[in-house]
Amino acid sequence: MKEIVIGFLGCGNVGGGVWELLQGFAPEIAHRDHVKIRVKKVLVRDVKKARSCSVPAEILTDNPNDVLFDPEITLVAEFMGGEQPATEYMLTALKNRKTVVTANKVAVALNWHRLQEAAQQSHVGLYYEASVCGAIPIISTLMTPLQANRIKRLMGIINGTTNYILSRMYANGEDYQLVLQDAQKLGLAEPNPASDVEGMDAAYKLSIMASLAFHARVPYKKVYREGITEITAMDIACGKEMGYVLKLLAIAKREDNTIEVRVHPTFLPAEHPLSQVDGSFNAVYLHGHACKEMMLQGRGAGDMPTASAVVGDILHAVTVDVHVHPTFANRAEPDATLTFTDNWTTKYFIRLSAIDAPGVLASVAGCFARENVSIATMMQKDAVEDGRVPLIFITHATPEQSMLAALKHLDPDICRLESMIRVED
Amino acid sequence: MKEIVIGFLGCGNVGGGVWELLQGFAPEIAHRDHVKIRVKKVLVRDVKKARSCSVPAEILTDNPNDVLFDPEITLVAEFMGGEQPATEYMLTALKNRKTVVTANKVAVALNWHRLQEAAQQSHVGLYYEASVCGAIPIISTLMTPLQANRIKRLMGIINGTTNYILSRMYANGEDYQLVLQDAQKLGLAEPNPASDVEGMDAAYKLSIMASLAFHARVPYKKVYREGITEITAMDIACGKEMGYVLKLLAIAKREDNTIEVRVHPTFLPAEHPLSQVDGSFNAVYLHGHACKEMMLQGRGAGDMPTASAVVGDILHAVTVDVHVHPTFANRAEPDATLTFTDNWTTKYFIRLSAIDAPGVLASVAGCFARENVSIATMMQKDAVEDGRVPLIFITHATPEQSMLAALKHLDPDICRLESMIRVED
Repeated sequence: MKEIVIGFLGCGNVGGGVWELLQGFAPEIAHRDHVKIRVKKVLVRDVKKARSCSVPAEILTDNPNDVLFDPEITLVAEFMGGEQPATEYMLTALKNRKTVVTANKVAVALNWHRLQEAAQQSHVGLYYEASVCGAIPIISTLMTPLQANRIKRLMGIINGTTNYILSRMYANGEDYQLVLQDAQKLGLAEPNPASDVEGMDAAYKLSIMASLAFHARVPYKKVYREGITEITAMDIACGKEMGYVLKLLAIAKREDNTIEVRVHPTFLPAEHPLSQVDGSFNAVYLHGHACKEMMLQGRGAGDMPTASAVVGDILHAVTVDVHVHPTFANRAEPDATLTFTDNWTTKYFIRLSAIDAPGVLASVAGCFARENVSIATMMQKDAVEDGRVPLIFITHATPEQSMLAALKHLDPDICRLESMIRVED
Repeated sequence: MKEIVIGFLGCGNVGGGVWELLQGFAPEIAHRDHVKIRVKKVLVRDVKKARSCSVPAEILTDNPNDVLFDPEITLVAEFMGGEQPATEYMLTALKNRKTVVTANKVAVALNWHRLQEAAQQSHVGLYYEASVCGAIPIISTLMTPLQANRIKRLMGIINGTTNYILSRMYANGEDYQLVLQDAQKLGLAEPNPASDVEGMDAAYKLSIMASLAFHARVPYKKVYREGITEITAMDIACGKEMGYVLKLLAIAKREDNTIEVRVHPTFLPAEHPLSQVDGSFNAVYLHGHACKEMMLQGRGAGDMPTASAVVGDILHAVTVDVHVHPTFANRAEPDATLTFTDNWTTKYFIRLSAIDAPGVLASVAGCFARENVSIATMMQKDAVEDGRVPLIFITHATPEQSMLAALKHLDPDICRLESMIRVED
């Protein structure tokens, strides 16, 4: 029987889950694949720290070289997170002819080309299903069963923290700050929530997914990004009244050689499949020219769902022993034939607060008309405390730059812009 | 550049779609994988028949041996459908060292062990993503990213025809026969709809999915099967009033070594994710011990979605050239340690028509109590035309055999059973 010797980089909750799953499946793997899996070394920061998982103390080490340079170890599983030192460790492992399985979205999004080049040169594998959306099999699906599709559109709810916050704001009309604090108490948001609420987490994942969907390198820095920190209960209530649900969406579209990639708060019609995805669930919706509409939904984070994806990759690497390296992934920069646009076309939810006087609507409509922004629906609310009147518009599909230009024409003495939120369907 | 020479068995709509996709991706495959794909021969029944696809007439043949025995052809893609002659052709191809990609659920469900044995003996691949649910990547997901999960429960809407019929009956209160006839006119149901409406189609697919989910052979003949032909508008209306949606569900559950596999009309709570899956969409919902809840939703049938899965498999076979054969699949019969039960525990929707007299409810409740069937909710409707009163019960979770025994106790002079429909959540 073949023995595969594995090293772990990191042993937090995900690492503990990977350990448990591997132990649980060891007899089946031995029987099915005639492979014995042995975890030989586990890199941790502090070997003396008490741990809830059952990794034996004698295999813990705080010296990365015990994993990276052990000639017996042929597969390294990384769940340290963060760009460094994880990237350098993985590069070293790959150069030493060890297949790498990683759950690290930041390292893959930022250094994919370096990792892939090292893997190819060493003829070993690089696996990263767990780096995007936990247990949801979006990486393997894009790489294999959907590979013959021209994917035009991919939209995802790929951050559980923000989806939890927005779901509660939608259901109960609560304020952002209050729900965020609750989420922090419940462990659903980090003490420093910036990476989630400002959309970086989603942008890393979108960079990876869009690259695979479009068979083209879509760098992180090309992703337009806007978080949910400015979203008010008023925005959500107005959208709800008009039949929309607010989500932090990661959106990637391709038309010929023009690509748009963006993460921002988005109103979706309440009947859209993604609108039903609540709380800490994640989902990815896409449309390919052959597969048509598809949606994958599940646990996008959490220790065991992430461990599920890591162990899926480990078993795949161990049993198949052949490595598919997407050709676009070995480039730091996208192909020169591609254009990344910030002038996408979408609908807009515009909330203004206007003085309560005749002629206001005509003035606003005039500003919109100057830029050919066509209004689909308008809603005027009763005056609020400061005597100003909320005016809400949903536009027809409009180029972003036209919308921004139209908003600049608004007369600040008559009305001010409270929110501009994009609307997809 | 490596050249891969392919033969097709069949050239209907799916085959035409596969041809188009392969032509469209040829330059990309050549660039990315350094592989040139050439379709050399296409088996059809009548080479003279006019075809809408662009397969050139000179590669058509009506002699299967031109595909099965051509030494240049190393991959055979089959989309003839039906058990025979497709199974024999595939076996011949496999024995002649040709990798097989198939969209044929019947052949895989019934003859998996023979196909797999032939593939293993010849060291070639056997791929069947397209055999279950068109473009939905359920086969690859179960085989790879979810392989470290103990899946306890899998439930699917995996037949588009019945889902279209039931969705319309639910939305509009229409009768079964009427909607079926419309579906036939629209090409959404076959002239002979038995395979769809009596659940055979779903049972074949469930046999394959459950085998992969449980890492154990689940033969087609073990699947309990009940179609939708007896479902009335009255059943659907009563369920709707109580907050349930009716779906033809394929259900597989495993608890230790006991397996239940069943296809039957099922009431689901309106808020269940599967309840939102309407019309010709398919979806598979599952729960694994590590991945937790997951749902894959998309186009489960149709020419291009099915072709998408076939070409995904072809490109996989061509580029990876390593073959994973699930060990359970080489058995005609399931492992002797497994038990297949027909005494599953679920909730029941029971519709009775009773005489309009005092004491009826007491009598029914007594029959239920004798078998420990506990009633969760009861609804009594106004008397209908024949003077009998509809009585509807939803039970608590109950073993199937207890439910059937309780119904046998009912006094036919007092009430008769109109419907028994299982309820899942």
